[in-house]
Amino acid sequence: MTQVLIIMGSDSDLPIMNKAIDILKYFDISFEMRISSAHRTPDRTHQIIKEFDGDVIIVGAGAAAHLAGVVAAYTIKPVVAIPIDATSLNGVDALYATAQMPSGIPVATMAINGSKNAAIFAAHILALSDNAMNEKLIAYRKDMAETVYKKDAELAKKLQREH
Amino acid sequence: MTQVLIIMGSDSDLPIMNKAIDILKYFDISFEMRISSAHRTPDRTHQIIKEFDGDVIIVGAGAAAHLAGVVAAYTIKPVVAIPIDATSLNGVDALYATAQMPSGIPVATMAINGSKNAAIFAAHILALSDNAMNEKLIAYRKDMAETVYKKDAELAKKLQREH
Amino acid sequence: MTQVLIIMGSDSDLPIMNKAIDILKYFDISFEMRISSAHRTPDRTHQIIKEFDGDVIIVGAGAAAHLAGVVAAYTIKPVVAIPIDATSLNGVDALYATAQMPSGIPVATMAINGSKNAAIFAAHILALSDNAMNEKLIAYRKDMAETVYKKDAELAKKLQREH
Amino acid sequence: MTQVLIIMGSDSDLPIMNKAIDILKYFDISFEMRISSAHRTPDRTHQIIKEFDGDVIIVGAGAAAHLAGVVAAYTIKPVVAIPIDATSLNGVDALYATAQMPSGIPVATMAINGSKNAAIFAAHILALSDNAMNEKLIAYRKDMAETVYKKDAELAKKLQREH
Amino acid sequence: MTQVLIIMGSDSDLPIMNKAIDILKYFDISFEMRISSAHRTPDRTHQIIKEFDGDVIIVGAGAAAHLAGVVAAYTIKPVVAIPIDATSLNGVDALYATAQMPSGIPVATMAINGSKNAAIFAAHILALSDNAMNEKLIAYRKDMAETVYKKDAELAKKLQREH
Amino acid sequence: MTQVLIIMGSDSDLPIMNKAIDILKYFDISFEMRISSAHRTPDRTHQIIKEFDGDVIIVGAGAAAHLAGVVAAYTIKPVVAIPIDATSLNGVDALYATAQMPSGIPVATMAINGSKNAAIFAAHILALSDNAMNEKLIAYRKDMAETVYKKDAELAKKLQREH
Amino acid sequence: MTQVLIIMGSDSDLPIMNKAIDILKYFDISFEMRISSAHRTPDRTHQIIKEFDGDVIIVGAGAAAHLAGVVAAYTIKPVVAIPIDATSLNGVDALYATAQMPSGIPVATMAINGSKNAAIFAAHILALSDNAMNEKLIAYRKDMAETVYKKDAELAKKLQREH
Amino acid sequence: MTQVLIIMGSDSDLPIMNKAIDILKYFDISFEMRISSAHRTPDRTHQIIKEFDGDVIIVGAGAAAHLAGVVAAYTIKPVVAIPIDATSLNGVDALYATAQMPSGIPVATMAINGSKNAAIFAAHILALSDNAMNEKLIAYRKDMAETVYKKDAELAKKLQREH
Repeated sequence: MTQVLIIMGSDSDLPIMNKAIDILKYFDISFEMRISSAHRTPDRTHQIIKEFDGDVIIVGAGAAAHLAGVVAAYTIKPVVAIPIDATSLNGVDALYATAQMPSGIPVATMAINGSKNAAIFAAHILALSDNAMNEKLIAYRKDMAETVYKKDAELAKKLQREH
Repeated sequence: MTQVLIIMGSDSDLPIMNKAIDILKYFDISFEMRISSAHRTPDRTHQIIKEFDGDVIIVGAGAAAHLAGVVAAYTIKPVVAIPIDATSLNGVDALYATAQMPSGIPVATMAINGSKNAAIFAAHILALSDNAMNEKLIAYRKDMAETVYKKDAELAKKLQREH
Repeated sequence: MTQVLIIMGSDSDLPIMNKAIDILKYFDISFEMRISSAHRTPDRTHQIIKEFDGDVIIVGAGAAAHLAGVVAAYTIKPVVAIPIDATSLNGVDALYATAQMPSGIPVATMAINGSKNAAIFAAHILALSDNAMNEKLIAYRKDMAETVYKKDAELAKKLQREH
Repeated sequence: MTQVLIIMGSDSDLPIMNKAIDILKYFDISFEMRISSAHRTPDRTHQIIKEFDGDVIIVGAGAAAHLAGVVAAYTIKPVVAIPIDATSLNGVDALYATAQMPSGIPVATMAINGSKNAAIFAAHILALSDNAMNEKLIAYRKDMAETVYKKDAELAKKLQREH
Repeated sequence: MTQVLIIMGSDSDLPIMNKAIDILKYFDISFEMRISSAHRTPDRTHQIIKEFDGDVIIVGAGAAAHLAGVVAAYTIKPVVAIPIDATSLNGVDALYATAQMPSGIPVATMAINGSKNAAIFAAHILALSDNAMNEKLIAYRKDMAETVYKKDAELAKKLQREH
Repeated sequence: MTQVLIIMGSDSDLPIMNKAIDILKYFDISFEMRISSAHRTPDRTHQIIKEFDGDVIIVGAGAAAHLAGVVAAYTIKPVVAIPIDATSLNGVDALYATAQMPSGIPVATMAINGSKNAAIFAAHILALSDNAMNEKLIAYRKDMAETVYKKDAELAKKLQREH
Repeated sequence: MTQVLIIMGSDSDLPIMNKAIDILKYFDISFEMRISSAHRTPDRTHQIIKEFDGDVIIVGAGAAAHLAGVVAAYTIKPVVAIPIDATSLNGVDALYATAQMPSGIPVATMAINGSKNAAIFAAHILALSDNAMNEKLIAYRKDMAETVYKKDAELAKKLQREH
Repeated sequence: MTQVLIIMGSDSDLPIMNKAIDILKYFDISFEMRISSAHRTPDRTHQIIKEFDGDVIIVGAGAAAHLAGVVAAYTIKPVVAIPIDATSLNGVDALYATAQMPSGIPVATMAINGSKNAAIFAAHILALSDNAMNEKLIAYRKDMAETVYKKDAELAKKLQREH
């Protein structure tokens, strides 16, 4: 069984969505990645969603960004969505079209272009029933903190040198 | 055959969408009106769209407002959409979610809450192959102009009285 | 063990957040509800988060809306957040402050004032390891669809009567 | 008779509007293309609109973007408009100036810079009384779907190679 | 000769535009006030503008707010415009549609609903060749300052009483 | 006597403001151009404004853009202002800070970066008492129209060649 | 010596600004409160600022909101400003006009309508050289926390009663 | 004792925050500069804030920008914050997340990317109890004015040469 399905409406979203893959690999989360559109290939999109028997669906879409809502309409798996900055409106169009879902069909919205956090959020969900994932998340947090500490120390050294 | 299908995602959109009906009746355009959601009843929505063999589909939706795009994905009839002011964002969310459609699947967006113009636009489309409709539209324009002339004249009288 | 923790920064958020409770009760999800501020009671907030050993944390906050991020910094449980319309900015301030989280610490953002969907999303997460919850969600979806069908039928009758 | 009139306010809009031509040619729709301004050449604009006896008018305009409204005031042909991103405001100025038309004079607004969809929407309108156009649109939709399927298949291969 | 022409697109703009009249009367500026629409009565609008041989034209319009631009296209008199808050967008639509005029055809934009300032600005223009108007403007400024001084003094008294 | 004073808050505004000079020279309008800040050199700014005995003041300012208001507070000459796109906010900050003037002290706001129209608007004002300027404006309008006609003709030729 | 000067452009700002007084009284900070406009009474405003020999100046202004910048241009005392929601733009105009100050003349911007925090921030500044103020601030923070704890406890009781 | 603590959430903020250092050095204000995140290293952030016994804390943060609020929750020193333009939203997200602080915990917000003004504002605060700093600020203001006068004079020469 694949744990996570990543789906995006267009291959132009790949550069953003690939950052999600890096995280999924880091956490040893199995995934499949699909291109299917809410508007151009609606039936294929439904079919992909209905056939997926994993845990979390990550959706990336820009502009009017209906894909996450269309996906959420066909599944009761948690849907995590990334509004993509794909038009002159800086991603505000996609943010509103993703976040402002009506009552009943929730979509978990990440930051504009925040595909990395979508994958980490999937790990948070999976960790609820997976102790190893839990440990990995704790280690990941520790690593992030260590990186900040290191940069803080480097800055301290740099400032000392300049005096 | 019904000429126009009006579809909205929720009965809370009825007060706005009823203004479209007044116009359709004025122009003697036959219509049916349906409530079906992009997210709560997606299959019913597809079925309604696929079964409709009339000319124009008018869609009203607020918030994330995916309904017009979902409808347009299942038809090659002209889809005319009204973004509805249904959240704290004053209809900007619905306007962006309706207007910013990706290439290939056009949706004709009207003003926020502009259901009246959606119906008039349907009349404009139908008039292309209906001379009587053409005449009615010309008369409608003339009536609108007369109403403005009348209000202008009333204002002139009112200003004269005040002097 | 309590499954869901609801936390909000001020009791002025209660009218919005109470809608989440209705859903949690409907799905028989155990919960506790706390008022604790990111800015006025930061240590208490950390303590509440660290002591919570349930599954999902739902956070409601308006204005600058730092609470969800502050909560997410102290837990690896999934954090689901509701930006609340609490200032003259219509909730856009809270939406941006909630959704635009930096890489590493994800927050699942719902619609402005979307507390109901936050609770439903918690049910989606819990359903991954709870078959009964899965059945309830399927039934809930069916009920939502039935409600739409019923309103569609009522509209049809009403339109027939008017002709 | 020319079926579609494309009109824009400035030759700086040509790079965007030329994408509409590609689509019109693809669908074998006859067109003429004119440059005429709402503000600099208003009488010429009225003359062009009044003389046009085809079916659909496509208007492109940026900034304050009054051209579509000015055109719509002089015709009962369907007016399809493209708000163009031509100022520092990212096209939001043109979107509002195009979409927020008052009651009575509808303008069908496409996405910012969405000239391609304007031409496709014209095809949707023409297809109502043109079976060949209908067939072309169905084929166009199928082609779009095939392109998505192909990209999805390529992605699948690429992901397999990487493992 | 009438010095100022006030023109608005709809009688719904009258409550805002009447504030301009109060100022014009205060400064003894002769005016006429007309209702004529850019979209519903374009030819009448052109006729009114062409016939006006006074000095300044004040235009009020909401929503897509094309009227000021349409007026400015037919005159080389200074056009002063008030974007009116007439839709759910709080007047931002009218502000953008009024202020973002293209090069060549300027429109002097006032604040949203700022009809009073439009009339005062007309007085500033007229004062360039009218010494009496100049004196009136200096007196008006002095009166405004006196009003502020008086309110400041009242506040001082009120604060003293409270201590 | 100099007819127009151009004032800007910083020499970084020069590339935008120089476009106003081209227009003033075209219309043979005498001008002086000054750099003086509302915040860094407030007294000098007041002195410049008080000493100016010409007709129109053109102000350019970006960011918080208080300069036009500060200038208007010290003169009853018509103040024409250009909000300059000088920050990450695309000029919206300057547009709001310029247009939203309180009652009593009007500022005539042009488009963001619209320095050319500010100079043309000054010509419109001056033309009220200068027949030669009137003729120049009529000629300028005619030239603008001719330019559009020429571009329209060139496009027609280009399209014919391509067929 | 008065420690804090509160200045606002109009008596319509009093309901918001009075909340600052409550805080200043709570912290035993001496203050004077003045009404003086950046545009209607600029010289008086300069005079008030130059004569003030206390520590902190609190400014409230709505709409174009130039007052804080005009005040800051005449003093090197810390200027704390409240953008007031006074127009249809929900205070965004005042926020931008207050926060986006150019380099060199800083203004400390509070939340829209955040007059209470302006007064508290003045207390933070005064506490740097006033141990008693320091103690009062620590007590104020503790009181705020206690209020939150109390509301949290009340909520707990209310939830228990409902079960 | 160090007078000013500069803290930022990420080393990507350094190019903006370094401009604050230039100012602090110019005014001979001692400082330390730290990198610590509200979300990745919350405990370290609290520790840094609690240990700081200087006078003013300058915080830089982009995106959701919770750092200033998190810092302010742990100190009664004046907190001066710079919203950084770090996402596709041009810094509006950071501006709202920084300025819209709830009552009780004030944060002094500067312009987007306005790190220079944050340091100058710190000097304004320090000058309240430091006469030398007072003199430096007066000199700094004079220098700024001289720079404007010089640029104004250079422009005058340049314009003369061109005639």
